[in-house]
Amino acid sequence: MSSVAVFGVSPGNVPVYHGSDLKVVDRKVRITELVLRCVIFGLGVLAAALVGFDVQVKEIFSIQKKAKFTDMKALVFLVIANVLVATYSLLQGLRCGVSMLRGSLLLNKPLAWVIFSGDQVMAYLTFAAVAAAGQSSVFAELGQPELQWMKICNMYGKFCTQVGEGIASSLVVSLSMVTLSCISAFNLFRLYGGNKGKSSGGW
Amino acid sequence: MSSVAVFGVSPGNVPVYHGSDLKVVDRKVRITELVLRCVIFGLGVLAAALVGFDVQVKEIFSIQKKAKFTDMKALVFLVIANVLVATYSLLQGLRCGVSMLRGSLLLNKPLAWVIFSGDQVMAYLTFAAVAAAGQSSVFAELGQPELQWMKICNMYGKFCTQVGEGIASSLVVSLSMVTLSCISAFNLFRLYGGNKGKSSGGW
Repeated sequence: MSSVAVFGVSPGNVPVYHGSDLKVVDRKVRITELVLRCVIFGLGVLAAALVGFDVQVKEIFSIQKKAKFTDMKALVFLVIANVLVATYSLLQGLRCGVSMLRGSLLLNKPLAWVIFSGDQVMAYLTFAAVAAAGQSSVFAELGQPELQWMKICNMYGKFCTQVGEGIASSLVVSLSMVTLSCISAFNLFRLYGGNKGKSSGGW
Repeated sequence: MSSVAVFGVSPGNVPVYHGSDLKVVDRKVRITELVLRCVIFGLGVLAAALVGFDVQVKEIFSIQKKAKFTDMKALVFLVIANVLVATYSLLQGLRCGVSMLRGSLLLNKPLAWVIFSGDQVMAYLTFAAVAAAGQSSVFAELGQPELQWMKICNMYGKFCTQVGEGIASSLVVSLSMVTLSCISAFNLFRLYGGNKGKSSGGW
């Protein structure tokens, strides 16, 4: 690997990494990526299960009413987004683990582009799902008196609490996906770093 | 600038940019950035104005009812997010324009980090605002019969149409911000590109 270190020396005003430092940074980035993908898989499955299997039955004047996640489209979107991101993270985590076992630390450009694009899509998808579900749960918790939309969480307390736990879990998933999308941007765009030098001080 | 070209030659298996190509790419990236920041500023102001000044008064049984954006918290969030992103884009656009006039094409690391972080925050902020407002407008347009939340757009048609135009404008803003955050990631992380070479084929 010493040849990589020699290629990595920069003649410009950008800090120079030595070979061993570079390997340590790469390994740390790789381990962080693997941990985050495992966290996303675990919490994505948990969030989908918490929301998807959440049911509460209430008897109101001898009529049985059932609250379930399909009553609100934002919750359906949240479950689908979590299942998608968990599956995606499982596949990416396997790729990441295999490449670590093989000892290869850098990506080639096409693969780096695929991973970067996938991570970006998943980060914005989960973020949008959490924002939409969060907005719906604010309506459910507080109502919207100006529009005569009444709060429903005083009727279905257990249901709402479990949905809240699912949304909290999804929030951690989406923040982890945001961090991962930064890591995959780093892994991709540093492959384009051949133009350091003179004009970097002018901005 | 020919010295930059010499520094930019890569000995690894990553495609080599020549000095003139590099300058052309940098200039194209810079112009795209400036155009996007102008688009975001214009459409951000438009979206905030469309939603913020949207009012419709209806007389129902001799009682005057007024629909305005403050009736729905998601629309208040959307207006604030658009004002923030428009102001941010104006400042960043000025910086971008000044640096183009000065002829400097590369960033230094601290500034690249500031721009990258700001762009990321703004991209996710506008995306969350659009998702939350979109979710609310689905409720307003279709209602949610399972929860006895009635649709309101059949009463306030003009109000809803104008809000819809504001959300569409915000969607373009958020997609432009996503593109910009990719550009600023490129501008930042290519400064770290000193480690191309041997192991990139193994993934």
